[in-house]
Parts: sequence; C-alpha cells; structure tokens
Amino acid sequence: MEKVREIVREGRRVGKEDPRRVVHAFKVGLALALVSSFYYYQPLYDNFGVNAMWAVMTVVVVFEFSVGATLGKGINRAVATLVAGGLGIGAHHLASLSGPTIEPILLAIFVFVQAALSTFVRFFPRVKARYDYGILIFILTFSLISVSGFREDEILDLAHKRLSTVIMGGVSCVLISIFVCPVWAGQDLHSLIASNLDTLSHFLQEFREEYFEATDDGDIKEVEKRRKNLERYKSVLNSKSNEEALANFARWEPRHGQFRFRHPWQQYLAVAALLRQCAYRIDALNSYLNSDFQIPMDIKKKLEEPLRRMSSEAGKSLKEMSISLKKMTKSSSSDIHVLNSQSACKDLSTLLKSGILNDVEPLQLISLTTTVSLLIDIVNLTEKISESVHELASAARFKNKMKPTASLKKSDSVSIGRAAVPIKSHDSDDHVVTILCDADVSNTVDQSRGETSVDSCHHVAIKIDDDDLVHEKHEVGEIHAHTSCVSCDPSDASDVLDSSNKRINSSN
Amino acid sequence: MEKVREIVREGRRVGKEDPRRVVHAFKVGLALALVSSFYYYQPLYDNFGVNAMWAVMTVVVVFEFSVGATLGKGINRAVATLVAGGLGIGAHHLASLSGPTIEPILLAIFVFVQAALSTFVRFFPRVKARYDYGILIFILTFSLISVSGFREDEILDLAHKRLSTVIMGGVSCVLISIFVCPVWAGQDLHSLIASNLDTLSHFLQEFREEYFEATDDGDIKEVEKRRKNLERYKSVLNSKSNEEALANFARWEPRHGQFRFRHPWQQYLAVAALLRQCAYRIDALNSYLNSDFQIPMDIKKKLEEPLRRMSSEAGKSLKEMSISLKKMTKSSSSDIHVLNSQSACKDLSTLLKSGILNDVEPLQLISLTTTVSLLIDIVNLTEKISESVHELASAARFKNKMKPTASLKKSDSVSIGRAAVPIKSHDSDDHVVTILCDADVSNTVDQSRGETSVDSCHHVAIKIDDDDLVHEKHEVGEIHAHTSCVSCDPSDASDVLDSSNKRINSSN
Repeated sequence: MEKVREIVREGRRVGKEDPRRVVHAFKVGLALALVSSFYYYQPLYDNFGVNAMWAVMTVVVVFEFSVGATLGKGINRAVATLVAGGLGIGAHHLASLSGPTIEPILLAIFVFVQAALSTFVRFFPRVKARYDYGILIFILTFSLISVSGFREDEILDLAHKRLSTVIMGGVSCVLISIFVCPVWAGQDLHSLIASNLDTLSHFLQEFREEYFEATDDGDIKEVEKRRKNLERYKSVLNSKSNEEALANFARWEPRHGQFRFRHPWQQYLAVAALLRQCAYRIDALNSYLNSDFQIPMDIKKKLEEPLRRMSSEAGKSLKEMSISLKKMTKSSSSDIHVLNSQSACKDLSTLLKSGILNDVEPLQLISLTTTVSLLIDIVNLTEKISESVHELASAARFKNKMKPTASLKKSDSVSIGRAAVPIKSHDSDDHVVTILCDADVSNTVDQSRGETSVDSCHHVAIKIDDDDLVHEKHEVGEIHAHTSCVSCDPSDASDVLDSSNKRINSSN
Repeated sequence: MEKVREIVREGRRVGKEDPRRVVHAFKVGLALALVSSFYYYQPLYDNFGVNAMWAVMTVVVVFEFSVGATLGKGINRAVATLVAGGLGIGAHHLASLSGPTIEPILLAIFVFVQAALSTFVRFFPRVKARYDYGILIFILTFSLISVSGFREDEILDLAHKRLSTVIMGGVSCVLISIFVCPVWAGQDLHSLIASNLDTLSHFLQEFREEYFEATDDGDIKEVEKRRKNLERYKSVLNSKSNEEALANFARWEPRHGQFRFRHPWQQYLAVAALLRQCAYRIDALNSYLNSDFQIPMDIKKKLEEPLRRMSSEAGKSLKEMSISLKKMTKSSSSDIHVLNSQSACKDLSTLLKSGILNDVEPLQLISLTTTVSLLIDIVNLTEKISESVHELASAARFKNKMKPTASLKKSDSVSIGRAAVPIKSHDSDDHVVTILCDADVSNTVDQSRGETSVDSCHHVAIKIDDDDLVHEKHEVGEIHAHTSCVSCDPSDASDVLDSSNKRINSSN
C-alpha cells in the first residue's frame, strides 16, 4: 500500500514537473486507439489484413515526446522501409533465379552482408546522430522482406501493404503530434538556453548576497533552501547531451512560431558551450562560498563595492540576454551591463591600488584574489556569451522590438570625463553613446524604455561624472554596442597588489 | 567518387578507433542469418509460420554493442511480451463477453488507457533508466494481441508462438553476444574510469613541462600535437551521460572476469563525479596556459620546484590509481604521491615565506596565485579521489597483490626529523611508516616492489632528512595510508604572501 502511494506521489511530481507529459500520454493513447481501428473497420481490414499491425507498431515506436523526434523517426522509418523494401525485393528476385537449393544460402548471405554493413555504418558519428533509427529499420525490413518473400509469392503486394501501413501509422503520429498540443524540440532548446542564462544570472546576482551578507544563524531550512536555489547552476554543468539531442530533433521540425525551418540551431549549441564554461568557473566560485575557511566579513567589505558590481552587472547582463532571447528580439541592453561589469573591474583595480588590502592576512588574501580572478574570468566569459548571443540574434533574424521613446539629443555623441566608454554602432549611422559607471551606484538614473518592462533588470545605471548630466541610451535601429572596446582581462586587475608590491620593491 | 573515398576513410577511422565495432557488425550479421533459418528450415517453419518474423525483429532491435545492453533489452522484451501477452488475452476475453457491438469500443478503450498510462510511466526517471524498452514493448504487445485477437480465434496459440519466437531471438542474441568476443559494459566502464584517471594524470604531468618549458618556437605541428594531446582531458568534462549509460547496462551483466554480478557500479560513478570536478579545475588551469598574458619564465622558475612537484606528484598519484584500478588490486602506492604533493604544498608555502616573490609585478602575481590556488584545489581533489578509489577497491573486493619483499625493519615505526608525515594503517597491526619528501628529488631511492613494475611511476621518492638513512615502505596486508592526516587546504599555502604582508604591516 505504501508502495502504491509512493508511485502515485512520484507520478504527481513527474506530471507537475512538466504537465506536457500528461498530454503526451493522452496523445499516444489517442493515436493507438485510432490506428487500431484498422482492425475493426471492415473495409480497411479487407484491404490490409494482418499488415494493419504495422501501423500499430509504427505508432508505438515512432511517437516521441517532441515533434522533431517524431518527425525524424517517422521520416527515417518511411524512407528506410521504402529503400529496404525495394532492395529486399531485388535480393529475393536475384536469389530465386538461382534455383531452390542455392536460394536459401544466397538469401542468408545477403542478409548477413547487409546486416553487418549497416550495423557498422551505425557507428559513424554523423549517421548515429540523425539516421540511427533509419538504419535499424532498414536492416529489419530488408531481412523480413527478403526472407519472408522466400515463402510468400505475392511479395510485391506484401511490400506495398507494409509500406502503406507504415506510412499511415507514421502520418497519424506526425499529425497528432503537430496539431494536438505540439511539443517543439526547437522551442524547448530555445527555452533551455534562455533558462540556463537565467540560472547563471541568478547565481551571480545571489552570489553577492551570499558572499557579503551570508548569516548562517538564520532558519536552517531557510539557509538550506537558499543554498539549494543557488546551486541550480549545477544543472548547466551536464546539459550537453540534452542540448545536442534537442538540436538534432529541432533540425527535423518545420517552421513553427518564430522558428524557421533552417533556424541556426548550431549557434544555440555554441552559446550553450560558453555557458557551460561559465558554469565551470561558477562551480569553482561556489566551492569558495562553501569552504570551511571563511574570510572575515570586514575584509570582504573592503572590496564589496566593485565585487558586488562585477557579479551583479555580469548577472544582469545574462538576465538581459535571457529576456531578449525569450522575447526573440535583438537587444543591446545586455551590453551596458557587460560594460558596467568591466568598468567595475577597473574600479576594483583602482581600489586595490589604493592599498586597501595592505593589512590583510596572506591566507585571506589568496582566497580573495582567487575569487577576484574567477570573477574576472566570468566577466570575460559574459562578454563572449554576449557576442555569441548577438550572433545568434543576427543568424536567427530576431526582430528589433525596441522603439525610440526618450527624445534623442541633438548631438549623437555625448562625451564625458574620466573612464568614459564609447559604444560604437555597427550600422551606418554611427551613434556614439558614452556611458560612465561610477562607484556611486545608489545615485543612478532609471532609464525609460519603449516597452513596459516587467523585469527590474531593465533599469540600467547610467551616471555621468558627478551627476551633472543625464543622457539616454539610444536604441533606434540595430545598435550593437560591441563590448570588446573595454577589455577586462587579468591585466585590468593588474594593479591588484600594486601598492603592496611597490612598497616591497622599494624596501628591497 | 570523392564521396565514396571519404566514406571509406571514415569507415577505417571508426573501425580503428574501436576494432570491436567490426566484430560487432559480424556478430549481428551472424545472429540474423541464423535466426532467418527459421524460414528455410521446414520443421521450424511448420511450427511457427509467419510468427518466425518476431525472432528476426527481436534480433534486430535487441542486439546491442555490449552484453549488458543486449541482456537488458532481451530481458525487458521477454518479460514485457509475457506480461502484456497475458493482459492482452485477458482484455480480449473481457471484451468478447460484451457482445460484437461493444467489443471494439471496449477494446479501443483498453488500448487507450494502457497506452496512456504506460507512456506516462516511461517519464519516471527510475523506470526510464532501466525499463524504458520494456514498457515500449508492453504497449506494443498489448495493443497487437488484444486488437488482432479480435480477428483471430486461436489467440492463445498466437501469444504462445509470439512469445517463443521472441525468446528464441533474444536467446540467440544473448548467447552470441556473450560467447563471441563479448563486449562487457562493466569492463568498459571500468576501463573508462581508469583511462580518465590516466588522462587527468597526463595533463598534470605534462602541465609542468608546458608551464615551465613551453617554447612555442619549435615545430608548429609538434606544438599543435602536444597541445591537442594535453587537451585530451576535455573528454572527461562531458563523460557523465556515457558513464551513467554504461553503469545502467553493467547492472544487467552476469559475473565475468573479476566482476561479480553485484559489482559496485555506483561507486564508479562516485569516482567519475570527482574526476569531473577535477577536470573543471584543470580546464580553468588550462585557460591560464593558453592565455595571451604569459608570466616571464624567470618568475615562474622561482616557484618551479614546488609547483612542479605538486602537479607531477598529483599526476603520479592519479596514474598509480589508474594502474591499480586496471590491475584490480588494492594498492596504497598512490597515497605516497598524494602525501608528496601535499608536502610540496608545504614547501611552496615555506618558499613563499622566504619572500621569493617580493619583486614580482602584481599582474604576474595574481596570475601566479590563481595557478597556485587551482593546483591546491587539484591536490585536495586528488586526495578525495584517492579515498573514493580506496572505497571502490574495498567494495569491489579487489585483491591485494602486493607482497613483502624488502625485509621489514624491527621497529614498526621509523621516526624522522622535520616535516615527517606519519601514515597510519587502518588495520589492527598499526605499522607507522614515515616518509619525508625533501626538495632534493634527484637524490631519491627507488623502492623495490613485489611485482615487476612496468611503469616508471612506481618509483617513489623516499628520502630521510639528509640522506643518512633509507627505509622501505611496508606493504604487507592492507595498509591504507590515509592521506587525510596531511591536510592541504588553502590554509596550508596560507603563508604564500606572508612575508610581503608582514613587511607591509610593519610599515603601516
């Protein structure tokens, strides 16, 4: 009894995790009930006889969760049945010419050779990825046709009936999977990448809280829950096989929604690979959060401002990318955050130059510099991810939804003082927008947008020198604020230990 | 023509990569030719008729590359056919009681309900991992039997024939896959883990060359080849799905070689997870090797000795684990290297204490400390991996091949001076062996072993104080040199920047 209750609980969990699973189960039931009507409905049965079972079989093995997988299997099965049927009839004809004694030997040789060859071809990586099922069906159909043909005379009729029932079964699957609550592998891949962006963003945004405010003396359950929530990024570490499978399925899918037939699925995998790299760094960063050795808060607080900004701005830029991916729009809003995070790198180095860490214990210093170094890595990867997402947006021809709202200043170029960062547009109209991020984040100006933004991340901190001038970000047309103009490689934080070392040098 | 040549080339590559693939192709051909003899051999055909095709079908879909996968599918198929056959007959009987008009409706409902339920159950993670194929066959057989039973009277006979042919096909597959050049998934998993250990070891051992001696002005092809060889570790990053599939297959396999039926396959996955974590750190380390910003050699050289020893000893310990795993023996030889790498950590901190890095530029210092920090992480993970491999060796009841050769000193405990590291045995007889690793590695003493060692890694550097005494490692019985007695967390390298900071402090 306990067992049954457990199964029911597990069933609820599985259904809740993705309600489309329940729908899929009903769809399979529907397709099978429909196809088995071949047996009940006399005219159909008279036509196909026992061969109607091939339709049932096709439905059972071809109907997959997503449209792409179903279409891929269906097409594979139909084509393989057709080709193998033809070859099987040919083999049977050839063998029958040789007389009744040699015929079975010849047939056995044919079966052996084609099975061995086809099985070997299944090991080819490119074949395995897309045509594995087709080859399997090829072996099956060829063997059945050429061998059972040995007994049955009406082999052409058999092949014809088998092919028609297979196609009928396949078509029912495909139609039901496309028209009854379709599950598109392409949409799933798209959402997965967007959600992975979101997950990493979540870690980076929570990281600052966890690193600078973590108080473990709160409710243990609360801490556990927060920790679990934080470690959602672990799902990104091992998502490769899932992503590749989805991309393979997606290639079979016809146009749906905003996805064209030849949507750049490969580019999604490129973004995903960078996200995984970023997740590896985050994994290392997380080990410092959980390490037994903790740096005292007052020492962390010294670097709080730039570190907070680095992680939160990198997080925000990932969040922006996730949002623009979800909305399928081209957007350069993430670039601003990338720039901000890079300018935070600079601020960090300035801060470190000032000798703020001079009285820090070496043990604490090494842990701190590694955290710094990993965050710099992550900021750099964020830039790469941003570029990759822009490439995806271009390749996938995402729309540009942004509309101009804030009235544009007459001067296309607004130049500012210290640490000004020019953003050059890709397009012919060369708007140069200059953004300065100062340490004083509290003194920010929210930027109004053409769309009603639901997400707080849309607020971009733009501040110019000492709050004497506010300017808008210009988003007409397709401005790709290429973030590469501000590099943030280790050399940017080069001055980290500058002051301390200079002192050492002078004392030497 | 070019296309054909390309396919042939690809075929050669695939075959060379794993020659067992060619053998597998022949095995499938053989099994199919054998089973199709059901059609040619009159007495067999008289018995089974068209149902003989089920044997062919079973062979095609059940015969997999490894014994475990084949057995798993075969058992799944046989059991599912049996159960679904029984239920199908029951359903058919129930429906036939209701009269000819309601019968098809009732049957359609039965088919719908069981298909929907079974399809939903396939989403349960535990079911999906082991019984996915079984459920598929259950749906298929139930539908076919209950529905085609509507037409055929001798339904019991049909079910019986179908089951026997399925079992015949399955048994041929299983027998051929076990007795003709078997490919054991368990053996593959075992070798994969051993080879992953080896791959990571290779990186760590080459890392020191690459980091301290890299001269890119050599032959470009040579450099490329070396780099490619070094980046073999990348295969470890994404090996999770492969390992889990192998572990799932391995559970179906009977006793073979030194693997029992209930071999601790889960423990292999635990080791694999740690190896992946280590690979993530190595990936970060590798990015420093490839970074555009390079630390001048003369600065690296300052830390060369301990860093070299840390990476090479960690690499050697992984190599030792790989060897003992391959040989399936319990061995504590890796522990010595773990200890050595940990003692190198200590040496590093001593060296850094001496103020050797005082005149290093901050940019170079941050890169260097991150390399140091990652290597410390890797040394710590090596310890965890070592523990996990020991657990595996115990759980899998590996033999203890080591035999005592060097005559044992009377005193079970040999104590030494500075930085002595006691290794405590787990067993009742508490031999305490103390090993000291000094900076002077060149002055080592090769340790003789009970077995003829083929690998240079078996040579362990053991040196006591100032080369006035040599002692042997004692390896009778099952000594688990638990490395945890020497911890090497960041705190061990805590003194890294000690001296420089002290100076700063005093100058403040």
